[in-house]
Parts: sequence; structure tokens; C-alpha cells
Amino acid sequence: MNQTINSDRLWQSLMEMAEIGKTPAGGVCRLALSDEDLAGRNLFIEWCEAAGLSIRVDELGNIFARRAGTDADAAPVLTGSHLDSQPLGGRFDGVYGVMAGLEVVRALNDAELQTTRPIDIVAWTNEEGSRFPAGCMGSSVFAGRRELDVMLDLQDLAGLSVRDELKRIGFDGPEKCGGFPVAALYEVHIEQGPVLEGEGKAIGVVTGAQGMRCFRVNVKGVEGHAGTLPMNQRRDAFQGAARMAVAIDELANTFQPQPVMTVGVVAVGPGARSTIPGSTMFMVDCRCPDEQGLEQLETEIRSICQGIAEARGLGLEIELITTIPPITFDATCITAVRDAAERRGFAHRDISSGAGHDACHVSVVAPVGMIFVPCKDGISHNEVEYASPEDIASGCQVLLDVVVEAANKI
Amino acid sequence: MNQTINSDRLWQSLMEMAEIGKTPAGGVCRLALSDEDLAGRNLFIEWCEAAGLSIRVDELGNIFARRAGTDADAAPVLTGSHLDSQPLGGRFDGVYGVMAGLEVVRALNDAELQTTRPIDIVAWTNEEGSRFPAGCMGSSVFAGRRELDVMLDLQDLAGLSVRDELKRIGFDGPEKCGGFPVAALYEVHIEQGPVLEGEGKAIGVVTGAQGMRCFRVNVKGVEGHAGTLPMNQRRDAFQGAARMAVAIDELANTFQPQPVMTVGVVAVGPGARSTIPGSTMFMVDCRCPDEQGLEQLETEIRSICQGIAEARGLGLEIELITTIPPITFDATCITAVRDAAERRGFAHRDISSGAGHDACHVSVVAPVGMIFVPCKDGISHNEVEYASPEDIASGCQVLLDVVVEAANKI
Repeated sequence: MNQTINSDRLWQSLMEMAEIGKTPAGGVCRLALSDEDLAGRNLFIEWCEAAGLSIRVDELGNIFARRAGTDADAAPVLTGSHLDSQPLGGRFDGVYGVMAGLEVVRALNDAELQTTRPIDIVAWTNEEGSRFPAGCMGSSVFAGRRELDVMLDLQDLAGLSVRDELKRIGFDGPEKCGGFPVAALYEVHIEQGPVLEGEGKAIGVVTGAQGMRCFRVNVKGVEGHAGTLPMNQRRDAFQGAARMAVAIDELANTFQPQPVMTVGVVAVGPGARSTIPGSTMFMVDCRCPDEQGLEQLETEIRSICQGIAEARGLGLEIELITTIPPITFDATCITAVRDAAERRGFAHRDISSGAGHDACHVSVVAPVGMIFVPCKDGISHNEVEYASPEDIASGCQVLLDVVVEAANKI
Repeated sequence: MNQTINSDRLWQSLMEMAEIGKTPAGGVCRLALSDEDLAGRNLFIEWCEAAGLSIRVDELGNIFARRAGTDADAAPVLTGSHLDSQPLGGRFDGVYGVMAGLEVVRALNDAELQTTRPIDIVAWTNEEGSRFPAGCMGSSVFAGRRELDVMLDLQDLAGLSVRDELKRIGFDGPEKCGGFPVAALYEVHIEQGPVLEGEGKAIGVVTGAQGMRCFRVNVKGVEGHAGTLPMNQRRDAFQGAARMAVAIDELANTFQPQPVMTVGVVAVGPGARSTIPGSTMFMVDCRCPDEQGLEQLETEIRSICQGIAEARGLGLEIELITTIPPITFDATCITAVRDAAERRGFAHRDISSGAGHDACHVSVVAPVGMIFVPCKDGISHNEVEYASPEDIASGCQVLLDVVVEAANKI
């Protein structure tokens, strides 16, 4: 394969799309099913139609723009991502995957090359979950992981439902959501972390997505007067919790395979400067690429907290409040991405996704691969989010190669 | 001296006073200048007049009940405490010191013994500071440490001022607050901590009051995605703050003279479970019996936080927000209390007060001594607060001895 993408055209499309919902600080606000999302969808469809694609919209507003293959009955290859953004999001998260899909098709048009299978560029509804509280809404219903009606009834803070907003913007499509076979799906996305940039790698070969377990830890001590209770008679809940948090952090730094663990929520009661804390609640967000690692980490976290609580005479309750199992992508897709990067001479490394993506959901019903490109300082969900034109082009080139390979394989 | 107090009468007076503002759980709610405080003041004055004392009320509502001495011109010996309570306070905090003063006078009446100096039983206004936000209000103005007019203008949450409430309950007295010489002041009080009970000591010979320095520590890190930022690239403000809090706790456990240090307020920002904390504020309440110790502790706290912040790439601001210098009581008064306890055969130990008391303020204008008695489990400012009749009696007996000794010394 030696078709090459047009990197200027890709960058131009990205920048043009970034005008829709543009924020003063150079980011984008294109909340799902808003007027800005509608404008983005319409521009995308306009471009797709100009490229000769046929458009389908399903009942949840997911858009499929098809480039026909020579075998009309063959299951399509899907590629895409999402057009919606965070309230103060960047110009690349999601929309890059959709514009890269468009560039793949445009490049194939330029080369007058027809694949065996059809290629569908997909724009999933409400990936961010910031307006309607269910991230990856379109892809998760497509994959049968969530109920359509439950999603349609979800409301934003103003009380507007997904159902009503889909109707209002005219994207309550006639097609059933999901239920058709998919030969493969590839999604290209910015990393949203600092690993590729730090190591000078152009391409991240995504092997899957980390699993997550989130714990709520309640530490119970005894309140007391900060001035009169000697140190050796205290049962200070926060001092226990602080030691647990430090030990959990140290565990995360030494455990293999390398997990990430975060204590981001801490509540100290009663929270008075002259009262020894009688209670402390904190949350541990624990992520690891494999299930066995998560299981071991949970055991270690419980053991660390138990040991500290017992040694300090504190009460302890640990509640597992969220579980997301790790996802491993299709071995053939992973290899295809790695080989394409290698053939193109791009520095690459295998990487596990720390964030959730539409592709993760689709991976339960189809072979899936993902391509990451570096983003500046690892920053995302932020108006300063940035990826260089070169890296954007490299990711799209790999995407072209793997999509064409899959679309010609029957 | 072999006059003895009447422990049944003392207990009876305490229990009768505890009926005023009695709470369902067996505590007391007698907020400063409330109707309950008024009822308590009136009962106290009624008892004092029955004991032949003459009453003076000053412009801040402080009550002085005088038993005449043989030398009418000699400076009086003062003894007393306060009648107001916390919203859900106990039956002993403060009121014990006033009732013990009354019992001293009653015992002297029984013995028909007249002292050289007059003895004033004093009930200070608003020691608790829970209704009007200035604890030890009466004694601090008496000692010239606060401005009378500022205090009179203070308002409670309902917007009622000290001035108006004093007038309403008829305790806006004609006497100037302070300004007369005091030969000595003795105050007996429950310990409000667990030390005496834990060591089986009946009497605490109070040598002074701890000083306090309170710090606000702001730790600044960098926010990040809990799923995508590797552990070794994080600048997690809470992980830095937790290590600082633990190190400060360890310092408190090893430093001499033994301080107490408490981290009772912690605020983690942004406080989301999947975001690495970008900021953490915490407060350190640090108390120590001597100024040099406080100074060293401040140096060590700053050095601990600095070291951790530098090692972890975090920003740091430490602000000293409150300073209360330590107080050392009059050596003669301390010795008098210790000797009296010894003569009466009471187990005793020297102790530094962890809480503030009216006597601490008066100590800057007169020789002052304090006597502590044990309270159950060290609990105070709570409806379950309790001290045994035996301990209550022992403290009052020592008080009688030191008051008579001081009142006969010219």
C-alpha cells in the first residue's frame, strides 16, 4: 500500500471544524446535541456527501457515512470517533478521529482505489458525557452494553432529554442502533497523556484499555480537643487516612504491571482546626491494564488500610463503588497497527489506554484497534490541548493503511 | 488551716445550677446573656446575698460578690470562673469554679473566720465565645487585653449585640470593667483532657497555658487525568500534603517538651475522584507550653514542608494565621497550690493547660494560680461531661486553702 494522506487537507478540515463552538482561549465548546454539535454534524455530512459517501443516521443520532466497496454484502470496516466536546475542550479530542476517517476516504478517492468491503466513517453521539451523564453513549448502545430507551430518557441539567434534543436537531434517525456485523473498527485519537511525547514516539499501538476499580474508604477515629489530648492518646482518623494514602501511592510506584492510583477526594470530619478528626473519607481510583493486577491491587489496598487502622485503633470500611473491567483489543488489529507504523518508519510503542473511548465499547462486538498520537504536555479536556500537524498526519497515515488492509481482507 | 469545705453542699449547688438550661441528654445549654444565663446569674446572686456577700456588676456584666476582709482597703483575692456554657455543654465546665468559690465563702462563714483581705467571687461574662465570637470576653477586657467597646458591639448570629443583651437582662452594670488591684486570683476547673484521670491524680497544679501557633499550608501541584498520567510524572498536591501531615504528626510525637499538633482541616482541589489533585490546603494547630518550643516547632514544620515540596516538585505557601503566646502562672501561686495539695494528701502533678481560661487573661495583670481536677475520659464541651463528687470536693478544698492563705497575706 502506498496511498498517502494529504496532511494539509486533514489539518485544514480540523481547523475549520474547530471554528464551530470556538472558545476565546482557543478551545472548543460543542456539547452533545447542542446547536454547535448540530453545526459540526452538518459540516461533516456536507463534506462526506461531497466525497460521494452515503449517509445513515441511527435512532441515537450516530452518523455512518459509507464509501461503497466492491462487495456490497460484505460487513463494513468502521473508523471514526466523536464530534462532541467537553464544555471547555480542545480541538483534537474525538474530532481528530472523525476527520482522519474523512481524510482516509478522500485519499482513497484521490487514488481512485476501491476496497472490497465498504468503509463507514462513524461519528458517535455524546462520547464526552458532560451534557448527558453517560459517556460513550452512542457506541455503548451500538455494542449492546446499554439500553437505548434509558439513554433516550436521560436529561441534561436543564431537564432536556436526549430524545427531545435528537428530535430538535433532526438527528433522531430511522436506522436501528447497532445490530449489523462489523469486519473491524479502527479509531485514531490523541493520547491524552504524556507518555508518547515524553519518549518521542509518533505512534501509540493501543493494546487495550485499563480496567478501573474505585474504592470509598471510611476511617473512623475519635474526636478530641486539639489542645488537651496528648499525642499518644489520640485516635486521629485523618492521620490514619494520610498514612493509607501515602502507602497506596508507594504501592502504585512499585507494582508491576505499572498501575495508576489516585486519591482525588478527601473529606475530613468535623473539619475544625482545633478538633482532632473523628472521621475521614477518601476515594482511591485504581487503574491497571489487566484483571489479575487489579485483583492483586485490591487485595493489597485492603491489607494496607487494615494494617494501618489496626495499628492506630481506627475503624475502617472499604467499599468498592465502581468496577470497569480491562479491555484487550483484537490481536490481529493490534498487530496491523504496529506493522503499519513500522512499515511507515514511525517510532512507536505499545500503550494501554488510560481513558475510555468509543472503540473500547465496540470491542465487545467486533475486532477493534486504536492508534494514539502524542498531545502536548499530555493535556486534554482543556482549551490548550494541542497535537502537531506532523503527528496528526502520522496517525492518519497509519489509519489509512490499516483500514485499507482490513477492507480488502475477506 | 483546717477549715474544710462541705462537699455535699457544693455538689448540691452544682446540680441545682445544672437544672437551669438542662438538656435532654443531661447537659446544659446556658449561652452567654441568654434567659438561661440570666437565671443562672440570678440564682448565683441569690446564694451570694444569702451568704452575706455584697454584689457589684461591671459594664461588661462581670459579677463580683465580695466577702469583706478585716482590711477594707486591701486588694481583694479573686476566685471564680464562668456560668455560661457551650450550646451542648456539660454541668461542670466553668460553673464548677464559681460554685467552688461560693463554697469557699460558705465554709469560711461556717468557721466564722474572717480573712484580712476581701474575697471576691467572680463570674466572668461569655467565657465560651460560642454565642458572641470572643471567648474569655469578660476576663480579657478586665485584663486590658481587649477593647470594651469592640466587645459591646459584637453581635450574635441573630444580630443582637452584647450591649443590647446586657441591657435586656439588666447586667449592664455601673462599675468600670477592670482597673482595680488584685492580690491574687485562683480558678478551679475540670481538666478537659485525660491526663489526670489516666494517671490517677486528684489535683493538677497548673503551671500555665500552652501557647498556640496555627498555620495554613497551601500545596500547589498540577492537575491531571487519573487514568493517563503515569505515577512518575505526577505532581500530586495531596500526596505531598499527606506526607507533610504525617511528618508533622511524627514530629509532635518525638519533640520535647511534648507539644500537641493537629491537622484538623484539609481541602483537596479540585476534589474529583478521577483528577489528580492540583491543590491541597491544610491547617496545623500547634501548641506547646513554652515559647522557645513553639519557635523551634515552627522552624521544623516549615523545614519539613519545604523539603517534601521541593522533593516532589510542588509549590508551597505557609501562613501563620494565629499566634497565642504561652502563659506562665505566678511562681508563688503555683507553689501554693502544689503545697496545699500535698498537705491535704491529694495525688497531684504539674500540668500545662491545653485550653484557654479566664485565669490566663487575668494572669497578665495579677498573680494567678489554677487548679485542675480530672474529668471522665477527658471529655468536655459535651453533654456527657462528668467529674466525680470526690474530685470536685478535692479541688475545692485546695482552692479554700490557697484563697485563705492569699487573703491573709499582706
